[in-house]
Amino acid sequence: MTDQAALQLPKGFRAAGVRAGIKPSGGLDFAVVVSENACAAAGTFTTNRVCAAPVKWDRALLPSARVRGVVINAGNANAATGAQGEANVRRTAETLAALLNCEPEGILVASTGVIGHQLPMDRVEAGVAAALAAATAEPEGFRLASESILTTDTRPKVYSTRAALAGTEVTLTGMAKGAAMIGPRMATMLGFLFTDAKVDPADLQVIIREAVETSFNCISVEGHTSTNDTVLLIASGDATPRALKGEALSAFAAMVKDACDALARMIPEDGEGATHVITIDVEGCRDREEARTIARTVADSALVKTAVHGADPNWGRIVSAAGYSGVAFDEGEVSLWLNGFPLYRDGTPLPFDATAVSAHLRANRETTIRLTFRRGDASVRFWTSDLTAEYVRLNADYTT
Amino acid sequence: MTDQAALQLPKGFRAAGVRAGIKPSGGLDFAVVVSENACAAAGTFTTNRVCAAPVKWDRALLPSARVRGVVINAGNANAATGAQGEANVRRTAETLAALLNCEPEGILVASTGVIGHQLPMDRVEAGVAAALAAATAEPEGFRLASESILTTDTRPKVYSTRAALAGTEVTLTGMAKGAAMIGPRMATMLGFLFTDAKVDPADLQVIIREAVETSFNCISVEGHTSTNDTVLLIASGDATPRALKGEALSAFAAMVKDACDALARMIPEDGEGATHVITIDVEGCRDREEARTIARTVADSALVKTAVHGADPNWGRIVSAAGYSGVAFDEGEVSLWLNGFPLYRDGTPLPFDATAVSAHLRANRETTIRLTFRRGDASVRFWTSDLTAEYVRLNADYTT
Repeated sequence: MTDQAALQLPKGFRAAGVRAGIKPSGGLDFAVVVSENACAAAGTFTTNRVCAAPVKWDRALLPSARVRGVVINAGNANAATGAQGEANVRRTAETLAALLNCEPEGILVASTGVIGHQLPMDRVEAGVAAALAAATAEPEGFRLASESILTTDTRPKVYSTRAALAGTEVTLTGMAKGAAMIGPRMATMLGFLFTDAKVDPADLQVIIREAVETSFNCISVEGHTSTNDTVLLIASGDATPRALKGEALSAFAAMVKDACDALARMIPEDGEGATHVITIDVEGCRDREEARTIARTVADSALVKTAVHGADPNWGRIVSAAGYSGVAFDEGEVSLWLNGFPLYRDGTPLPFDATAVSAHLRANRETTIRLTFRRGDASVRFWTSDLTAEYVRLNADYTT
Repeated sequence: MTDQAALQLPKGFRAAGVRAGIKPSGGLDFAVVVSENACAAAGTFTTNRVCAAPVKWDRALLPSARVRGVVINAGNANAATGAQGEANVRRTAETLAALLNCEPEGILVASTGVIGHQLPMDRVEAGVAAALAAATAEPEGFRLASESILTTDTRPKVYSTRAALAGTEVTLTGMAKGAAMIGPRMATMLGFLFTDAKVDPADLQVIIREAVETSFNCISVEGHTSTNDTVLLIASGDATPRALKGEALSAFAAMVKDACDALARMIPEDGEGATHVITIDVEGCRDREEARTIARTVADSALVKTAVHGADPNWGRIVSAAGYSGVAFDEGEVSLWLNGFPLYRDGTPLPFDATAVSAHLRANRETTIRLTFRRGDASVRFWTSDLTAEYVRLNADYTT
């Protein structure tokens, strides 16, 4: 794995985060990241049928070779907002495009926040201008941007790495948002990665799709897929003379995968009210999708999450969650380990010291669940957090 | 709908509930219902791949024309218990069969409680003998049985009805268990219906399957399908000279449907920690399965459940839950009402008085969500309850 380096923007990019007055709190809520030159860009998006207006906008444009900037706001998701919402995202893109002297189709947009409210467009337009004026290539600009995209997260999530590819040093820097045990508003998982490597848009699309498969698509909050989920990968090409191919492209893909893994993992680690981070390894499945279906079902089970929270080694909840995942396994092929303790082997319960396992669960914030089958060679690693009364309080006691 | 009548056992049945020492609390935990003569019987069972030993036993026997009794225990699910668990359920059936002088295959078995522990067979055998000795045709026996099958339920769930079919009075009496916002142990949904109508086993099977479709299959706890879910319908035939056919059979099917609806609805109404019962109507779908998929996804969303608990008219959570249900609808065909207030029409948000809707949610334990589509004529009515901090506390703070 490439190591995380000190935060640094890739060549060609400037970033800023400002207060546009969209969040009722008055906090940072508006970010731009812009590039001097046209960038290659690719992305992956929510599978929700009710998808936000900015998701529709971006999806129609990507992959692209002419991206000049991204506008991101928190505090309002611009989702379930009908034709007015679509007009507002176009207007947002036009505002930044006019200032950058490019086409509106060169601007990507992402939003997170409450669903079903129209954006206050006067504030959005002022926010675009203010953010662009503040945009800087210094790390501070990206740091402020990473804070401006947060909703109920308790801390920003950034990752920066450098490597020599095809003879030149390349930088890859990303930010993400998402509060695992999500907060009073609809949470959204957003991820943005920027690089100064030169990569063809079609290659970028393959790389980001594959990296998201095993990172952002392997975390769960409470299974509520947002209307706004977006991961973008934007490459200025300012550091490398020619588009990366062959081994250098593979090395770049590995950098992107590591960055996505690191950013995705930060989401359940910042779980609201969470007292445990749960890593679920599902092994011996026919394909990755099957393994992920089982892992996601276990991760989304309120009974599993509350058992972990209560340090209760009630492993029947884990096995039974796997059982209703829809994967047609046989009970006799299932084995289970909890925090390394073997509890169930080939469909038969094993004797274990419940007091010791409970004490181990209580003493460790990191919880590991390993479920093995005998169906094939595919496996998946999935991350989630536990379910606490604090989560319920945060999601019930605030009113829109 | 047939009206609920005073509790009365159908002709030919005797019932009892006793303390067998399986529940650590020492409470009622063991029930039998037996018949003088061989009964027709049918049932429906969990779809969980990890299904309990008694589920495997019953499923292999039904439909049947030679059932003499049912044994039900609470406190231990006999699930994920391997070959020993299967031997124990056979032993249980053999014990009652020997006392009734019938084959073991004439005995059905159901269990609910913690997963992964072997039954204490000495107590089970003593329980069978004690319960049979106590069995009575008086309503008190059935009432005690209905209490003995509970786990975290706060009250027993019984329903009794009578009607004249083909010239004779027929009685249908049922009991169920299941704590909607389920408790410290794995909850199980169990339902048992008894009648003195004479019905062919094949007809019984069709009737119970159809009745369960729109009742027990239209409630949700937190989406965690139990390993032990079982609904049985047992007909002694002692009240009617010939098997019901034609109109009388249809009238009987309607009685069964009403009884299943009434019993199923009692489950979310008894939700642990629940402050709201939520009725979800999904209309205008291509088929019932599609409507139920949407309803179930909304019902299982922790964000929807916490919003209702907090009287927060955050309707975007409902629409977005429908959006990730997997049904490929278009956003523009969706309309939504919450407690009768129109909030979203044809993909566009409607202005509404958030304070008034919130006050209405707060003042009423009954919450209604209506979601309409323009895909077809199929609809479904689904019931669930809200998610409270009390639920988390109950499921986290008890240790097996």
